[in-house]
Amino acid sequence: MRFAVYLPPAAEKGPVPVLWFLAGLTCTAETFTIKAGAQRVAAEQGLALVMPDTSPRDTGLAGATGDWEFGEGAGFYLDATEAPWNERFRMYSYVVDELPRLVSGRFPLDMGRQGIFGHSMGGHGALVVALRNPGRYRSLSAFAPIVAPASVPWGQKAFPRYLGADRSTWARYDATCLVEEGARFDGTILVDQGEADGFLLDQLQPQRFEAACEEAGQALDLRMHPGYDHGYYFIQTFIEDHLRHHAKALIP
Amino acid sequence: MRFAVYLPPAAEKGPVPVLWFLAGLTCTAETFTIKAGAQRVAAEQGLALVMPDTSPRDTGLAGATGDWEFGEGAGFYLDATEAPWNERFRMYSYVVDELPRLVSGRFPLDMGRQGIFGHSMGGHGALVVALRNPGRYRSLSAFAPIVAPASVPWGQKAFPRYLGADRSTWARYDATCLVEEGARFDGTILVDQGEADGFLLDQLQPQRFEAACEEAGQALDLRMHPGYDHGYYFIQTFIEDHLRHHAKALIP
Repeated sequence: MRFAVYLPPAAEKGPVPVLWFLAGLTCTAETFTIKAGAQRVAAEQGLALVMPDTSPRDTGLAGATGDWEFGEGAGFYLDATEAPWNERFRMYSYVVDELPRLVSGRFPLDMGRQGIFGHSMGGHGALVVALRNPGRYRSLSAFAPIVAPASVPWGQKAFPRYLGADRSTWARYDATCLVEEGARFDGTILVDQGEADGFLLDQLQPQRFEAACEEAGQALDLRMHPGYDHGYYFIQTFIEDHLRHHAKALIP
Repeated sequence: MRFAVYLPPAAEKGPVPVLWFLAGLTCTAETFTIKAGAQRVAAEQGLALVMPDTSPRDTGLAGATGDWEFGEGAGFYLDATEAPWNERFRMYSYVVDELPRLVSGRFPLDMGRQGIFGHSMGGHGALVVALRNPGRYRSLSAFAPIVAPASVPWGQKAFPRYLGADRSTWARYDATCLVEEGARFDGTILVDQGEADGFLLDQLQPQRFEAACEEAGQALDLRMHPGYDHGYYFIQTFIEDHLRHHAKALIP
């Protein structure tokens, strides 16, 4: 597994808060590092960034490559239960357990101060990981997240193959379902969404999450931005807002 | 030919100054747009960015692809005189004449206020284009430029094939030779160079240009930066300085 770590100058003096970024479909551990322009602000704020890949690679499994919506590059941050995916596609455990153990011993990270965010499929990952691990992350945000995968084509294509036909297992990887079923994040969730995003109507549908949060009393700051699409120029534009949102919670 | 244009919000109200960025070997019109993080500062400063490709593409010429140091992706911002390159590889004329004509009629650009900068091979291009067209550009800068191509392996490989064996023609595309032979830029040239740049000693050799400028009384601000390599993280770090340098000259 490949991952990228950015350490701010403050890390030379001692452990710094760690902010996890989960990337979207087709992305790698390099995409956000190259395209987001996050390091400038992370340097100023004193935040470490850890940026995992979006799936295992070179698995050799039949059907794992050649489809940008499933398999390599499309791990959906879940632990697959169906063969043959269940042996290698365990991104949920990787993000929640394996990678934190690995990096905490190797870099000057204050694991008591963690935040998490992501984009698209990675926004889904960030929401799910934070909602299922209350107390672990002090801050949470997303760019154009998939908020209800069990109800939209991307999830309805990938989840049966990774998780099987039983939809009750899908709900554990669906942020809207999690909030509906009682999961909460202790803080305001920041979500930015472009109104010119070509995936907005069929795949993203942030209003589903907004309705669930409103019903549940979960604090959510959903910001709709006219003219912005799904790409990294959108992320470049609002990355500073997100890092400041996290810094506010992570750095007293 | 492909090129990228960024217009700042100020362009909605009227023509804005235009800043040309010339990219390096292997790059396209997308590289700087994606990796540099320049738009944020250009938006604040009110500068348009025009970012051409580094060469013609799909030329079909034998030997035009397959070598990152020559041919497609390696046009060296010159007008080739040797067959078969002289028909298509005319990047100097493209940058100085053709593209300005094309964009000036299509975008709200104030062609009376132009600046130019570039990276590596594109830093070479920016220096040569500005030195050979006094009065055209009000501001000039470069990241890790090739300042003396006629004296280093990159130029000694490409120039004979593009320009022939007569070294006197090479000097017209060599910033150090141009300054030695009397060309001047009316203003301070800003150059940033990483000290951990793997090309520093054999290909870049900024001290050659520094010596020529000092001898000629040409104002030069050469800044050496410990720890930085040749890549776009180096550019991301200092892009704001460069855009402010240009804005200072372009926006009274």
